[in-house]
Amino acid sequence: MSKIKVIFDTDPGVDDAMALLFLHFAPEVDLVGITTTLGNGSIDTTTRNVLYLTERFGIDAPVARGPDTTLLGDAPAPADFVHGKNGLGDIDLPATVGRTADPRPAFQFIIDTVRANPGEIAIVAVGRMSNLALALRADPEIAGLVKQVVIMGGGFGYFGNLGNVSPAAEANIHGDALAADEVMGGAWPITVVGLDVTQRTNMTTEFLKALADDGGEAGRFIWDITRFYEDFHHKSGVPNIFVHDSSAVAYLLQPSLFKTRTGAIRVITEGLAIGQTIQKPDGRGFPPSPWDGRPSQTICVDVDSEGLRDLYRRTILRGA
Amino acid sequence: MSKIKVIFDTDPGVDDAMALLFLHFAPEVDLVGITTTLGNGSIDTTTRNVLYLTERFGIDAPVARGPDTTLLGDAPAPADFVHGKNGLGDIDLPATVGRTADPRPAFQFIIDTVRANPGEIAIVAVGRMSNLALALRADPEIAGLVKQVVIMGGGFGYFGNLGNVSPAAEANIHGDALAADEVMGGAWPITVVGLDVTQRTNMTTEFLKALADDGGEAGRFIWDITRFYEDFHHKSGVPNIFVHDSSAVAYLLQPSLFKTRTGAIRVITEGLAIGQTIQKPDGRGFPPSPWDGRPSQTICVDVDSEGLRDLYRRTILRGA
Repeated sequence: MSKIKVIFDTDPGVDDAMALLFLHFAPEVDLVGITTTLGNGSIDTTTRNVLYLTERFGIDAPVARGPDTTLLGDAPAPADFVHGKNGLGDIDLPATVGRTADPRPAFQFIIDTVRANPGEIAIVAVGRMSNLALALRADPEIAGLVKQVVIMGGGFGYFGNLGNVSPAAEANIHGDALAADEVMGGAWPITVVGLDVTQRTNMTTEFLKALADDGGEAGRFIWDITRFYEDFHHKSGVPNIFVHDSSAVAYLLQPSLFKTRTGAIRVITEGLAIGQTIQKPDGRGFPPSPWDGRPSQTICVDVDSEGLRDLYRRTILRGA
Repeated sequence: MSKIKVIFDTDPGVDDAMALLFLHFAPEVDLVGITTTLGNGSIDTTTRNVLYLTERFGIDAPVARGPDTTLLGDAPAPADFVHGKNGLGDIDLPATVGRTADPRPAFQFIIDTVRANPGEIAIVAVGRMSNLALALRADPEIAGLVKQVVIMGGGFGYFGNLGNVSPAAEANIHGDALAADEVMGGAWPITVVGLDVTQRTNMTTEFLKALADDGGEAGRFIWDITRFYEDFHHKSGVPNIFVHDSSAVAYLLQPSLFKTRTGAIRVITEGLAIGQTIQKPDGRGFPPSPWDGRPSQTICVDVDSEGLRDLYRRTILRGA
């Protein structure tokens, strides 16, 4: 089987760590690099976490660090009420990590890796889109050299929610809306895995406990880091954790789990709805609009949640 | 049976005319006034059409004319490609109409009628929200004196569409976004009947033909005016006409046909998403946002389309 070469752009983050292990144990994935973004923690925190995770689980992909601000130059407060102060559910972490990051900034690492593997790289981006936007600004031609981009972010209302950090916007897009609008306008084939499907799929305490029992070190680790994350969901009135970032990995591995729609996408970069993702569905007529001339991208509108959970469990258990 | 006193705010418009006949023949409705807005035609056209319809069908409610611009002072081009140049599917209309409008402007008529019937008036508004906003500006206390407001407009993505005149916005809201934002913020109980349900319900050619056969003069009139409207849908790739304005009437008559969600609503008044309606669902936590402090309003998220069509047919046939 020919493996898919994957760059994982991430800000661990509890569900980022779960998605990283999902990629690591997926037999069809060749993880060729991990790039970090700020978001669920500061860039120091998320980069430290990726280095720690790669060391602990023997993931030998190089790690490249992203910028410490968004494209607008600000650094939104970390979502520590969701992911804990250390970004991994406040489990005990070692004071230092042996591994170090690649000397290149994340966007340069992306450019170099894509150019060295033309037509072969899938980028799975589950944090702010800053690295992807910077890579596209520095070398627009890479868009045509990337095999596919899968993004966790946004929301289109199919499951009743456009956003989770505001009534209009999802956190990853809201956190660097300008970057997201630039990335969605890039001539690379994007699939957006948004709240429409990630909030439709959950994992119960029983599901996670069974992973802890049967899933070896990874399963036990997932149990440990999800205690804080589960508690946040409970405090928000949500009985079971949503499956955000791992849904993007699931799309990469088994797109048939999802129902999709195509059309140009814009991201609102100012005003009340800042961070909202809006698609102009292909095949429907509208007067001239700022969506015109943008590439058609794919969004996920429904998911086989049971199939997704099965795939996740089977994959994690490969490491047991 | 105690009847519901209704003011119908409208811009006929093919589906407006269908909704007016729906109200006229509904035994539980006492139509106490009709106010006109620009939209599907100019204010001259829509007012002429309401006067013509009331004369032709013996509807004795007074008619009050709305302003010839939106709250921002512009007058968007009529949607004549949807409703025909005369707003009624380009059927033959008499050169003159005997009835004349009430001398008061529409917003004053609304204020006077609400004050004369405290707690008893339902406003069904299926055009631009200009008259409602002007009434609220001139006499904010009427909000507490209105029984209910049912609005056809907006979209929340449940059926995949936020808009029909742009990827973000529905025509009635887009046409006077400032008015809609003011109206949604009013302390009156609003139900928004948007694209989420109006595009989920259609009427086939066969259904309309059966109305023409069985529905007397009204049924034949509906058949005549929907020929142009149906043709517009066909040209847009939509096989059957959507049921926009009559869905708002159906909510008034039989709310159990609908599934709803509550929460504060904002309307985007500038930028890419101008005219978009965004609800902050009740019971979900968000950081402080411009939705805070606004009244909780109701939106429709699903509908029993078969039940709605049955109700429409049964009601029109009462006039046969």
